[in-house]
Amino acid sequence: MTTFHFQHVYVNGRGTAGGKLEKEGPIGSLFDQTFDDSYCGESTFEKAERALLTSASDHALRRAELGIDDIDILIGGDLINQLTSSHYFARQLQVPFIGMYAACATSSLVIGEAALLVEQGMAKKALAFTSSHTNTAERQFRFPNEYGIQKKPTTTLTVTGAGAIVLSNEKSAIKVTDFTIGKIIDWNHTDANDMGIAMTPAALDTLLTHFQDTKRGFDDYDLIVTGDLSKLGFSFLCDLLVQKGYDLQNKLFDCGMMVYDIEKQPVFCGGSGCASSMCVSMAKLLKELEEGKYRRIMVIATGALLSPVAIQQKESVPCIAHAIVYEREGSQ
Amino acid sequence: MTTFHFQHVYVNGRGTAGGKLEKEGPIGSLFDQTFDDSYCGESTFEKAERALLTSASDHALRRAELGIDDIDILIGGDLINQLTSSHYFARQLQVPFIGMYAACATSSLVIGEAALLVEQGMAKKALAFTSSHTNTAERQFRFPNEYGIQKKPTTTLTVTGAGAIVLSNEKSAIKVTDFTIGKIIDWNHTDANDMGIAMTPAALDTLLTHFQDTKRGFDDYDLIVTGDLSKLGFSFLCDLLVQKGYDLQNKLFDCGMMVYDIEKQPVFCGGSGCASSMCVSMAKLLKELEEGKYRRIMVIATGALLSPVAIQQKESVPCIAHAIVYEREGSQ
Repeated sequence: MTTFHFQHVYVNGRGTAGGKLEKEGPIGSLFDQTFDDSYCGESTFEKAERALLTSASDHALRRAELGIDDIDILIGGDLINQLTSSHYFARQLQVPFIGMYAACATSSLVIGEAALLVEQGMAKKALAFTSSHTNTAERQFRFPNEYGIQKKPTTTLTVTGAGAIVLSNEKSAIKVTDFTIGKIIDWNHTDANDMGIAMTPAALDTLLTHFQDTKRGFDDYDLIVTGDLSKLGFSFLCDLLVQKGYDLQNKLFDCGMMVYDIEKQPVFCGGSGCASSMCVSMAKLLKELEEGKYRRIMVIATGALLSPVAIQQKESVPCIAHAIVYEREGSQ
Repeated sequence: MTTFHFQHVYVNGRGTAGGKLEKEGPIGSLFDQTFDDSYCGESTFEKAERALLTSASDHALRRAELGIDDIDILIGGDLINQLTSSHYFARQLQVPFIGMYAACATSSLVIGEAALLVEQGMAKKALAFTSSHTNTAERQFRFPNEYGIQKKPTTTLTVTGAGAIVLSNEKSAIKVTDFTIGKIIDWNHTDANDMGIAMTPAALDTLLTHFQDTKRGFDDYDLIVTGDLSKLGFSFLCDLLVQKGYDLQNKLFDCGMMVYDIEKQPVFCGGSGCASSMCVSMAKLLKELEEGKYRRIMVIATGALLSPVAIQQKESVPCIAHAIVYEREGSQ
């Protein structure tokens, strides 16, 4: 049993910030703020990523009608080594901080942790956040974009953006009701340029574990989205589920294919990065849930626990997926 | 209020593994296993670190008389980018995994998280672990040891070792009773070769926050140890506390100065690394608590959230400290 159920956790605020490519994508108009300049007016890409975090968190707090002094605890994580973006952003806030890492699955992990603390009364109000930036991620995990190295068509593009969420037990239109913690799954995939396929087994495992733990299925959800499986990994997941006899009911989608128009934008097989599932959830899905389009949705953020050093040492890529369920208040 | 209090969290097992220098130090005989070879019989230092984790976790489970199938959740973290040691160790276990990072303060963070989950009944039995290895850490954060670069006398030596702990609500001789989550503190220290001084303000902040939250002081503890402040940082902390009017009552020590004989061993200003506070706590302090030497102790693990990229970009070093309180059962 690895699904935690929550009775009293509400979404009080949510905020998002994105870059130029994200602004030009299908959810572009839903971001609270977008930056046309990839430096976001700062002197380095690393500082730009912190500017995105600052913007997203400010908007989340504003929507919750709170100041930072009202927050008991911060929970954050990002793709940069030593969680640099989160730590350097959080140092200005003077609020107790928990740092977590699950690659692109960090979004669900930090939201789940915040929900755990709020449910138990350990925190009255928690702010969870995550970010990614294509230029900071590429130069850390692969090559600096400035090198102009040709990317393989199986890759994804790291979303430049940040998302933040305020949770508390004060009633609102949206509840966080479940958190399924994933196991590390490794099907011995070694191609660091095709992370979508690598992550698919982890998404499958967490989805099926969640169904088993909650005795639910596709019937019980209006929408289930995976984080960044890429169009290759996503079609692999659909195949695996259909092979297992599931009727997907046209309810399964992938955040990396919602944040960009993958036919028209230069994003290879879709978007990825901590900010992908976070921004799609905060900017689009929770808004639609609030507006009554859905009753219950699940976001399964997926993470390739890729280490450049381990890849150089000929290791395969372990992956993980964590799931969060959101419900419209009063819809139970 | 950032101190969580626990009523029902017990230590059922603890395990430690160390390297050659750790074996030759003052707590050498207390490790469950030590390796004379810095590769621990593996082909890379990264794999050696996983071998240390495997050994420590095996000993913790054995002491708890449990198998890995009895564990509901794993909580781990380490110093290596993308938490590589923890993730590659955990992928073989097939148990839900939470990854956390707070540099050398990760030890208290993962134990605190495990305690939170056990206290609330979210997990019946949790295994928390952390590791560090001087060769993997040096080449990631500074220079590979093989280069033979002369180290500044203000540096510390990363402990080669791992520690693991099993927590549950099944009664045992030792309880985990409190967890104080630190804020990120940055006094604008920029020397990456003197992390002890950088971390001292974070240790001070968490100690004073804990005293304030719990209305306790030095009188209420038999021992308070900081994680790896180095002899410079530790004497800075003592100075700051004395200036504030505290009588330290000869109760304050530092794990990095307990794991090595800093006068005789070639460790510069002491030990550091996730494994330092973890191994001193698991191998020595909890054993002495169990044997009745203490009634209540506190471990304040400290972490320099150092990022080589940020240092190259002329940033200062943000730091954090998280505290865990252990009590002998029945001593309240």
